[in-house]
Amino acid sequence: MKPKRRRSPCPIACTLDLVGDRWTLLVVRDLVLGKTHYNEFLASPERIATNILADRLEQLVAEGFVTTAPSNQRAGALAYSLTERGEALRPLLESIRDWGLAHVPGTEARLQPG
Amino acid sequence: MKPKRRRSPCPIACTLDLVGDRWTLLVVRDLVLGKTHYNEFLASPERIATNILADRLEQLVAEGFVTTAPSNQRAGALAYSLTERGEALRPLLESIRDWGLAHVPGTEARLQPG
Repeated sequence: MKPKRRRSPCPIACTLDLVGDRWTLLVVRDLVLGKTHYNEFLASPERIATNILADRLEQLVAEGFVTTAPSNQRAGALAYSLTERGEALRPLLESIRDWGLAHVPGTEARLQPG
Repeated sequence: MKPKRRRSPCPIACTLDLVGDRWTLLVVRDLVLGKTHYNEFLASPERIATNILADRLEQLVAEGFVTTAPSNQRAGALAYSLTERGEALRPLLESIRDWGLAHVPGTEARLQPG
Protein backbone atom coordinates (compact mmCIF):
# COMPACT_ATOMS: atom_id res chain seq x y z
CA MET A 1 0.00 0.00 0.00
CA LYS A 2 2.71 2.47 0.83
CA PRO A 3 6.16 2.91 -0.63
CA LYS A 4 8.95 3.75 1.76
CA ARG A 5 10.15 6.81 -0.10
CA ARG A 6 7.95 9.62 -1.30
CA ARG A 7 7.69 9.94 -5.06
CA SER A 8 7.82 13.74 -5.07
CA PRO A 9 6.97 16.70 -2.80
CA CYS A 10 3.55 16.93 -4.48
CA PRO A 11 0.80 16.81 -1.83
CA ILE A 12 -1.42 14.83 -4.20
CA ALA A 13 1.25 12.18 -4.76
CA CYS A 14 2.02 12.00 -1.03
CA THR A 15 -1.65 11.62 -0.10
CA LEU A 16 -2.16 8.92 -2.74
CA ASP A 17 0.86 7.11 -1.29
CA LEU A 18 -1.06 6.92 1.98
CA VAL A 19 -4.66 6.32 0.93
CA GLY A 20 -4.58 5.88 -2.86
CA ASP A 21 -5.90 2.39 -3.37
CA ARG A 22 -9.32 0.83 -3.91
CA TRP A 23 -9.97 -0.08 -0.26
CA THR A 24 -8.40 2.25 2.29
CA LEU A 25 -10.87 5.10 1.87
CA LEU A 26 -13.81 2.69 2.09
CA VAL A 27 -12.64 1.74 5.58
CA VAL A 28 -12.31 5.43 6.41
CA ARG A 29 -15.83 5.96 5.01
CA ASP A 30 -17.15 3.26 7.35
CA LEU A 31 -15.43 4.92 10.31
CA VAL A 32 -16.94 8.28 9.35
CA LEU A 33 -20.32 6.52 9.22
CA GLY A 34 -19.82 5.41 12.82
CA LYS A 35 -18.63 1.83 12.38
CA THR A 36 -16.04 0.81 14.95
CA HIS A 37 -15.61 -2.97 14.83
CA TYR A 38 -13.82 -5.34 12.47
CA ASN A 39 -17.03 -7.30 11.90
CA GLU A 40 -18.88 -4.13 10.95
CA PHE A 41 -16.29 -3.25 8.31
CA LEU A 42 -16.49 -6.81 6.96
CA ALA A 43 -20.27 -6.50 6.65
CA SER A 44 -20.11 -3.52 4.29
CA PRO A 45 -21.64 -4.17 0.86
CA GLU A 46 -18.26 -4.13 -0.93
CA ARG A 47 -17.35 -7.37 0.87
CA ILE A 48 -13.74 -6.52 1.66
CA ALA A 49 -11.56 -9.62 2.10
CA THR A 50 -10.40 -10.32 5.66
CA ASN A 51 -6.70 -10.10 4.77
CA ILE A 52 -7.15 -6.78 2.97
CA LEU A 53 -9.19 -5.37 5.85
CA ALA A 54 -6.59 -6.44 8.41
CA ASP A 55 -3.80 -4.93 6.30
CA ARG A 56 -5.58 -1.62 5.74
CA LEU A 57 -6.52 -1.25 9.41
CA GLU A 58 -2.93 -1.93 10.39
CA GLN A 59 -1.66 0.68 7.92
CA LEU A 60 -4.25 3.23 9.02
CA VAL A 61 -3.17 2.79 12.63
CA ALA A 62 0.53 2.88 11.68
CA GLU A 63 0.03 6.12 9.74
CA GLY A 64 -1.91 7.80 12.54
CA PHE A 65 -5.32 7.94 10.87
CA VAL A 66 -6.95 5.51 13.27
CA THR A 67 -6.60 4.65 16.92
CA THR A 68 -7.71 1.55 18.81
CA ALA A 69 -9.15 0.87 22.25
CA PRO A 70 -10.55 -2.23 23.94
CA SER A 71 -14.12 -2.75 22.82
CA ASN A 72 -16.81 -2.36 25.42
CA GLN A 73 -19.22 -4.26 23.18
CA ARG A 74 -17.26 -7.45 22.55
CA ALA A 75 -14.82 -8.95 25.03
CA GLY A 76 -11.40 -9.29 23.47
CA ALA A 77 -12.23 -7.16 20.43
CA LEU A 78 -10.86 -3.77 19.45
CA ALA A 79 -12.82 -0.63 18.76
CA TYR A 80 -11.37 1.52 15.98
CA SER A 81 -11.89 5.25 15.67
CA LEU A 82 -10.55 8.10 13.58
CA THR A 83 -7.89 10.41 14.95
CA GLU A 84 -7.96 14.11 14.11
CA ARG A 85 -5.70 13.32 11.14
CA GLY A 86 -8.20 10.71 9.98
CA GLU A 87 -11.24 12.94 10.55
CA ALA A 88 -9.52 15.50 8.32
CA LEU A 89 -10.06 13.12 5.38
CA ARG A 90 -13.81 13.82 5.48
CA PRO A 91 -13.77 16.68 2.90
CA LEU A 92 -11.73 14.47 0.59
CA LEU A 93 -14.30 11.66 0.94
CA GLU A 94 -17.07 14.16 0.28
CA SER A 95 -15.37 15.32 -2.92
CA ILE A 96 -15.05 11.74 -4.09
CA ARG A 97 -18.69 11.07 -3.20
CA ASP A 98 -19.85 14.19 -5.03
CA TRP A 99 -18.02 13.29 -8.23
CA GLY A 100 -19.49 9.78 -8.09
CA LEU A 101 -23.04 11.00 -7.47
CA ALA A 102 -22.77 13.39 -10.40
CA HIS A 103 -21.00 11.11 -12.86
CA VAL A 104 -21.71 7.45 -12.10
CA PRO A 105 -25.36 6.57 -12.82
CA GLY A 106 -27.20 4.66 -10.13
CA THR A 107 -24.98 5.55 -7.18
CA GLU A 108 -26.57 6.27 -3.80
CA ALA A 109 -24.75 8.04 -0.99
CA ARG A 110 -24.64 6.61 2.51
CA LEU A 111 -22.29 9.36 3.67
CA GLN A 112 -24.78 12.22 3.77
CA PRO A 113 -24.06 15.42 1.87
CA GLY A 114 -22.24 17.78 4.23
CA MET B 1 -7.25 -0.78 -12.46
CA LYS B 2 -10.96 -1.31 -12.90
CA PRO B 3 -13.14 -4.28 -12.02
CA LYS B 4 -15.89 -5.17 -14.45
CA ARG B 5 -18.67 -5.15 -11.86
CA ARG B 6 -19.28 -2.41 -9.35
CA ARG B 7 -18.70 -3.36 -5.75
CA SER B 8 -21.73 -1.49 -4.41
CA PRO B 9 -23.91 1.52 -5.32
CA CYS B 10 -21.71 3.70 -3.07
CA PRO B 11 -20.43 6.71 -5.06
CA ILE B 12 -17.13 6.58 -3.17
CA ALA B 13 -16.58 2.91 -4.08
CA CYS B 14 -17.58 3.54 -7.70
CA THR B 15 -15.24 6.52 -8.04
CA LEU B 16 -12.36 4.58 -6.47
CA ASP B 17 -13.03 1.79 -8.97
CA LEU B 18 -12.32 4.33 -11.71
CA VAL B 19 -9.48 6.45 -10.31
CA GLY B 20 -8.52 4.83 -6.99
CA ASP B 21 -4.92 3.85 -7.50
CA ARG B 22 -1.56 5.50 -6.96
CA TRP B 23 -1.11 6.81 -10.51
CA THR B 24 -4.32 7.70 -12.32
CA LEU B 25 -4.97 10.96 -10.49
CA LEU B 26 -1.36 12.07 -11.00
CA VAL B 27 -1.94 11.88 -14.76
CA VAL B 28 -5.17 13.85 -14.28
CA ARG B 29 -3.21 16.37 -12.18
CA ASP B 30 -0.73 16.81 -15.05
CA LEU B 31 -3.58 17.37 -17.49
CA VAL B 32 -5.11 19.97 -15.15
CA LEU B 33 -1.68 21.63 -15.04
CA GLY B 34 -1.75 21.92 -18.83
CA LYS B 35 0.38 18.97 -19.91
CA THR B 36 -0.87 17.34 -23.08
CA HIS B 37 1.83 14.97 -24.40
CA TYR B 38 3.02 11.52 -23.35
CA ASN B 39 6.59 12.79 -22.94
CA GLU B 40 5.43 15.55 -20.63
CA PHE B 41 3.64 13.07 -18.35
CA LEU B 42 6.77 10.90 -18.33
CA ALA B 43 8.86 13.89 -17.26
CA SER B 44 6.88 14.50 -14.06
CA PRO B 45 8.91 14.12 -10.87
CA GLU B 46 7.19 10.90 -9.82
CA ARG B 47 8.80 9.12 -12.79
CA ILE B 48 5.84 7.04 -13.86
CA ALA B 49 6.85 3.89 -15.73
CA THR B 50 6.06 3.87 -19.45
CA ASN B 51 3.82 0.80 -19.24
CA ILE B 52 1.83 2.25 -16.33
CA LEU B 53 1.44 5.58 -18.11
CA ALA B 54 0.26 3.90 -21.32
CA ASP B 55 -2.22 1.78 -19.34
CA ARG B 56 -3.62 4.69 -17.35
CA LEU B 57 -4.01 6.92 -20.42
CA GLU B 58 -5.82 4.11 -22.21
CA GLN B 59 -8.16 3.62 -19.25
CA LEU B 60 -8.78 7.35 -18.90
CA VAL B 61 -9.75 7.54 -22.58
CA ALA B 62 -11.87 4.39 -22.33
CA GLU B 63 -13.74 5.79 -19.32
CA GLY B 64 -14.38 9.16 -20.96
CA PHE B 65 -12.12 11.29 -18.76
CA VAL B 66 -9.68 12.14 -21.52
CA THR B 67 -9.87 12.70 -25.25
CA THR B 68 -7.14 12.58 -27.88
CA ALA B 69 -6.36 14.56 -31.01
CA PRO B 70 -3.42 14.60 -33.39
CA SER B 71 -0.65 16.72 -31.91
CA ASN B 72 0.20 19.94 -33.69
CA GLN B 73 3.55 20.01 -31.87
CA ARG B 74 4.93 16.60 -32.79
CA ALA B 75 4.17 14.80 -36.00
CA GLY B 76 2.63 11.40 -35.31
CA ALA B 77 2.04 12.12 -31.61
CA LEU B 78 -1.24 12.48 -29.77
CA ALA B 79 -2.34 15.42 -27.66
CA TYR B 80 -4.40 14.43 -24.62
CA SER B 81 -6.93 16.68 -22.93
CA LEU B 82 -9.58 16.40 -20.26
CA THR B 83 -13.22 16.02 -21.17
CA GLU B 84 -15.91 17.70 -19.10
CA ARG B 85 -16.13 14.50 -17.05
CA GLY B 86 -12.38 14.68 -16.45
CA GLU B 87 -12.38 18.39 -15.64
CA ALA B 88 -15.01 17.61 -13.00
CA LEU B 89 -12.31 15.75 -11.04
CA ARG B 90 -10.61 19.06 -10.21
CA PRO B 91 -12.40 19.63 -6.85
CA LEU B 92 -11.49 16.08 -5.86
CA LEU B 93 -7.82 16.73 -6.70
CA GLU B 94 -7.97 19.96 -4.72
CA SER B 95 -9.34 18.12 -1.66
CA ILE B 96 -6.53 15.58 -1.91
CA ARG B 97 -3.97 18.38 -2.31
CA ASP B 98 -5.37 20.27 0.67
CA TRP B 99 -5.20 17.25 2.96
CA GLY B 100 -1.61 16.60 1.88
CA LEU B 101 -0.54 20.20 2.35
CA ALA B 102 -2.02 20.24 5.85
CA HIS B 103 -0.87 16.80 7.00
CA VAL B 104 2.25 15.71 5.13
CA PRO B 105 5.25 17.82 6.13
CA GLY B 106 7.37 19.21 3.32
CA THR B 107 4.81 18.98 0.53
CA GLU B 108 4.60 21.77 -2.05
CA ALA B 109 1.62 22.27 -4.34
CA ARG B 110 2.02 22.66 -8.07
CA LEU B 111 -1.73 22.69 -8.59
CA GLN B 112 -2.48 26.14 -7.23
CA PRO B 113 -5.07 26.59 -4.48
CA GLY B 114 -8.43 27.24 -6.13
